[in-house]
Amino acid sequence: MGRIICAGLGPGDPELMSVKSDRAIRGAKHLAYFRKKGRAGQARRIVNGMLRDDVIEYPMEYPVTTELRFDSDEYRQLMVDFYAEWADRLEELAKTEEVVVLCEGDPFFYGSFMHLHTRLQGRAEVEVLPAIPGMVGCWSALDTPFTWGDDVMTVLMGTLPEADLIAHMKRADALVVMKTGRNLPVVKRALAAAGRLDDAWLVEKGTMPDQRTAKLADVADDDCPYFAIVLVHGQGRRPEAAE
Amino acid sequence: MGRIICAGLGPGDPELMSVKSDRAIRGAKHLAYFRKKGRAGQARRIVNGMLRDDVIEYPMEYPVTTELRFDSDEYRQLMVDFYAEWADRLEELAKTEEVVVLCEGDPFFYGSFMHLHTRLQGRAEVEVLPAIPGMVGCWSALDTPFTWGDDVMTVLMGTLPEADLIAHMKRADALVVMKTGRNLPVVKRALAAAGRLDDAWLVEKGTMPDQRTAKLADVADDDCPYFAIVLVHGQGRRPEAAE
Ligand SMILES: C[S@@+](CC[C@H](N)C(=O)[O-])C[C@H]1O[C@@H](n2cnc3c(N)ncnc32)[C@H](O)[C@@H]1O
Ligand SMILES: C[S@@+](CC[C@H](N)C(=O)[O-])C[C@H]1O[C@@H](n2cnc3c(N)ncnc32)[C@H](O)[C@@H]1O
Repeated sequence: MGRIICAGLGPGDPELMSVKSDRAIRGAKHLAYFRKKGRAGQARRIVNGMLRDDVIEYPMEYPVTTELRFDSDEYRQLMVDFYAEWADRLEELAKTEEVVVLCEGDPFFYGSFMHLHTRLQGRAEVEVLPAIPGMVGCWSALDTPFTWGDDVMTVLMGTLPEADLIAHMKRADALVVMKTGRNLPVVKRALAAAGRLDDAWLVEKGTMPDQRTAKLADVADDDCPYFAIVLVHGQGRRPEAAE
Repeated sequence: MGRIICAGLGPGDPELMSVKSDRAIRGAKHLAYFRKKGRAGQARRIVNGMLRDDVIEYPMEYPVTTELRFDSDEYRQLMVDFYAEWADRLEELAKTEEVVVLCEGDPFFYGSFMHLHTRLQGRAEVEVLPAIPGMVGCWSALDTPFTWGDDVMTVLMGTLPEADLIAHMKRADALVVMKTGRNLPVVKRALAAAGRLDDAWLVEKGTMPDQRTAKLADVADDDCPYFAIVLVHGQGRRPEAAE
């Protein structure tokens, strides 16, 4: 009897993986991971140098990424077929083998593996290993406390409508914006409208060798990294307020 | 030249610590951690069995916990003195030694170490090792994807005024409520007012040996665990919506 282990990788630095994910990956005989067609894949790159010599790899290549609109029927159908096919293949493999599936950050936090997790319920034994989300690696890269006392923290996707972004940005103390990429100019405009732009940071590839941090206001409008997170720190309630 | 390393411990299961925190803790000669007077301390308990035989321990005992009101001058003054004293002691020690300070979850996410971090700026070399936040361990314990697609996630403290809780609970898709304890009845009432109570879970001591999970609606009103998190899952945008 085999099973599927989805190993959360954390933000990128392999030393920030959990002891449990580290062990699962080093021992893996069958290793699956998502990637864009023709790319090495971010998840696969993180585990470079950790794998067994005889590992068998299963790159799960997205049929489509940004060529089609998210809300088109064609995009939806391609993705539905893609997840269905890989759910079938992993189910089959897991009848006899243990398969490790890589996932960037924490798998249950906006992770692609969730689409397979849902489809595999009742069909295979699946264990998900939690990990440090990308945002935690990003605020750690800025070496400053992120949330204090009674701060309200809100996580937003850059793909949300601008009006929704502004409304949420006005109300929360600490802010995280993921899935920036081509939406970064909208995110910047929304932060400015909410009066938060001057406190915002951009962290690209947090904890990776080519990490970059910058004040968001200083980032050019045509500079739109996909693997980046925008952060606004909370100020919170703290004892020194009395000093 | 010594330094201070704050090692994030993650949610509780020692196997969920990062490879880097695990190594720092196993190698520590000087080990500091917060605890309530007269208690073993949650952080200290997590590293049981991992320490060197000759480790020197520095329990940093809170002068006060729930006996005084948070907003009283007396409470504030006691905490200010407490943090100032330990900042001095750690600064002194770090002149010649490496000291590891334990912190539950991720240190920069509502962690007590931040009060020392702020005070130690420019006085000692401080490195903070990120970790899996408690909430990630808690949603992982429920074995269900937490946020999808464009979901908005908001993190709230149970210590917030009820009206603020309700307003935020109405607007976000996925919800996390920390610092429950004696505030749990208020949190329940607020979730009910926002129409979210039936979807809420309580996770106590997530990933620890005595972990408990329950539908929040089934938890008695006088059952108020401090080390617990309330979770409401997001439903988000997903490809299968087209099926
Ligand atoms: C599909 S989500 C996956 C999130 C992941 N499961 C997690 O826990 O962080 C992809 C988004 O995560 C963000 N991200 C994750 N890790 C990051 C890192 N190390 N640096 C910058 N952005 C990161 C980016 O905003 C990216 O658009
Ligand atoms: C002072 S905050 C510290 C948060 C920590 N730095 C983190 O990253 O989770 C203490 C609160 O964290 C929550 N908490 C942290 N870890 C938890 C766990 N494993 N199970 C349940 N609650 C947890 C509880 O709500 C508790 O009241």
